[in-house]
Amino acid sequence: MKYISLPITGLLSIFLILMTGCNNLQQQESSQESATNSIFDPLPSWNNGNAKQSVIDFVTKTTMEGSADFIPVSDRIACFDNDGTLWNEQPVYAQFVFAFDRAKAMAPEHPEWKTEQPFKALLEGDMERVWASSVPDLLKIVAATQAGMTTEEFEQSVTGWMDTAVNPNTGRHYNQMIYQPMVELLNYLRDNGYKTFIVSGSGIDFMRPWTEKAYGIPPDQVIGSSYIVKYEIREGQPVLFRLPEINFVDDKEGKPIGIHQHIGKRPVFTAGNSDGDYAMLQWTSTGPGPRFGMIVHHTDSIREVAYDSLSSIGHLQKGLNDAAKYNWVVVDMKENWKEIYPLLD
Amino acid sequence: MKYISLPITGLLSIFLILMTGCNNLQQQESSQESATNSIFDPLPSWNNGNAKQSVIDFVTKTTMEGSADFIPVSDRIACFDNDGTLWNEQPVYAQFVFAFDRAKAMAPEHPEWKTEQPFKALLEGDMERVWASSVPDLLKIVAATQAGMTTEEFEQSVTGWMDTAVNPNTGRHYNQMIYQPMVELLNYLRDNGYKTFIVSGSGIDFMRPWTEKAYGIPPDQVIGSSYIVKYEIREGQPVLFRLPEINFVDDKEGKPIGIHQHIGKRPVFTAGNSDGDYAMLQWTSTGPGPRFGMIVHHTDSIREVAYDSLSSIGHLQKGLNDAAKYNWVVVDMKENWKEIYPLLD
Repeated sequence: MKYISLPITGLLSIFLILMTGCNNLQQQESSQESATNSIFDPLPSWNNGNAKQSVIDFVTKTTMEGSADFIPVSDRIACFDNDGTLWNEQPVYAQFVFAFDRAKAMAPEHPEWKTEQPFKALLEGDMERVWASSVPDLLKIVAATQAGMTTEEFEQSVTGWMDTAVNPNTGRHYNQMIYQPMVELLNYLRDNGYKTFIVSGSGIDFMRPWTEKAYGIPPDQVIGSSYIVKYEIREGQPVLFRLPEINFVDDKEGKPIGIHQHIGKRPVFTAGNSDGDYAMLQWTSTGPGPRFGMIVHHTDSIREVAYDSLSSIGHLQKGLNDAAKYNWVVVDMKENWKEIYPLLD
Repeated sequence: MKYISLPITGLLSIFLILMTGCNNLQQQESSQESATNSIFDPLPSWNNGNAKQSVIDFVTKTTMEGSADFIPVSDRIACFDNDGTLWNEQPVYAQFVFAFDRAKAMAPEHPEWKTEQPFKALLEGDMERVWASSVPDLLKIVAATQAGMTTEEFEQSVTGWMDTAVNPNTGRHYNQMIYQPMVELLNYLRDNGYKTFIVSGSGIDFMRPWTEKAYGIPPDQVIGSSYIVKYEIREGQPVLFRLPEINFVDDKEGKPIGIHQHIGKRPVFTAGNSDGDYAMLQWTSTGPGPRFGMIVHHTDSIREVAYDSLSSIGHLQKGLNDAAKYNWVVVDMKENWKEIYPLLD
């Protein structure tokens, strides 16, 4: 289905539609041909240059039968951070905005929040005070608004919010702030037999309701932080109830652990953008055989936000320092990306 | 590839090979035709009768475009218990045999085991005494032999054991004691767009090294119990180290929780064989729309082992009591299965 918007006609179109979603070798080879010949650019939102070429070279050498660097389909595991790598994370992680919006909506049921920080500051609109809170205090807002309900109720609340909330910088819905070049990269990898996963510090259940539509990544290929859930019978019906107790933090050293728990294989391709992704990039790049590590560097102050080592959101220093050591490809968003976001109708 | 051993020739064969692994609608419809017409029996090791027919009816009605019970591909989630459902669990769960074999091999490095129970009884061959141990004592043997090493070392030890160990009842390797009718069921579901998962009380990392070959289920679609792993640098290289601390127990109420954590969707098809599977069967069957629950009932004392409510391994009572209430199909292994295990060369 990905191909339908492209200018392909007649027999070629029928062939590509038939092949879409197939994982057998015939298809991988044909996709790869399409990817590297001149008719079909698999990464149209990437400017030509080293970053784009290194991706194409890696995919080509790891999928070509007989190549010394061939990787069997079952080992083609590709992991992507989400915030700042697949979508925008500025001025603040979307899941915090979601928590703040929910807290405001829930405030009438919680009169105690009028005096209890950081809820008080939030309800008074004193965001400077909110952001001066400790991390445990900020997580109080997340727990109060994202636990204490069933998994199905939570999913509905995420979906409802995603349909209405907009980013203050752009006026776009959050799921319209995915990075078009990365969506193309995900498709390109999948078309070549790679299985794509999200590995994010954000909440696993905050992402799952919308990642399939946004990125083509189904819920079972999303890894993230989580609360403990409990199976119980309520009003005669089984439910999974979200408790305000942290089950797993999928950040920093937690990322390779989350990858192991969920995937059970070491990835061969990983993309991130912050030092929270350092451990998973390192885990990926130090395995045997061909490996690809990518750091998305936020260099575009006009079309997005330029930030790295001085930012608390998406802090990046160690990754840049060690990029050469591990052969990580640093993507310069300003130079390497023709588009940032998908075009809207 | 699954079709190649069947008597299909010429164009039909090329067509089926082309279609293998495809998930688009054209393919689902054609697989389904093949499944229900007389040329091609998708479940050849199942005797005709109610159990087989109810599976085929469910798959047909949930995959036929325009059917009132149609389920979109993204919701076709099928979960299978492993021990006693996909493979034999008698006289004892394979993972315990693995633990005992490893303990015997490791004994020279652990002189203290000569006096410490239950290791002492195990090393003296007093299995009656071993099995009289408490569960925490039995888990001591598992922890001593399956933690305290890297994930890669553990994977190698599982693979080495699986290549050599044999079941005392049959003389077969453990991975030759998978149930042929269930392997056919997994293939049939996948050919019709279902995504198949294992949801087992056994260790997730004990299963992952061999499930893809045995069942066509890749490591990331295996859910099980786990130890905590830690990411650290040893001798300059990152490793994931298995600690002897339980991370998650994927049994009873843990099964719907494990399903939520890993898959993030409620299954529509679930098969189990013991009361350890009750909660996941209940979670599956009480969702909206068409649902299928299956209990594999061990009724064949000649070709396998007959057991249910009186057995501690694979204890089954509550599931049988409530099968009618939840419309669970109880598979009578003796009556319903033509073959138990795959034919060996």
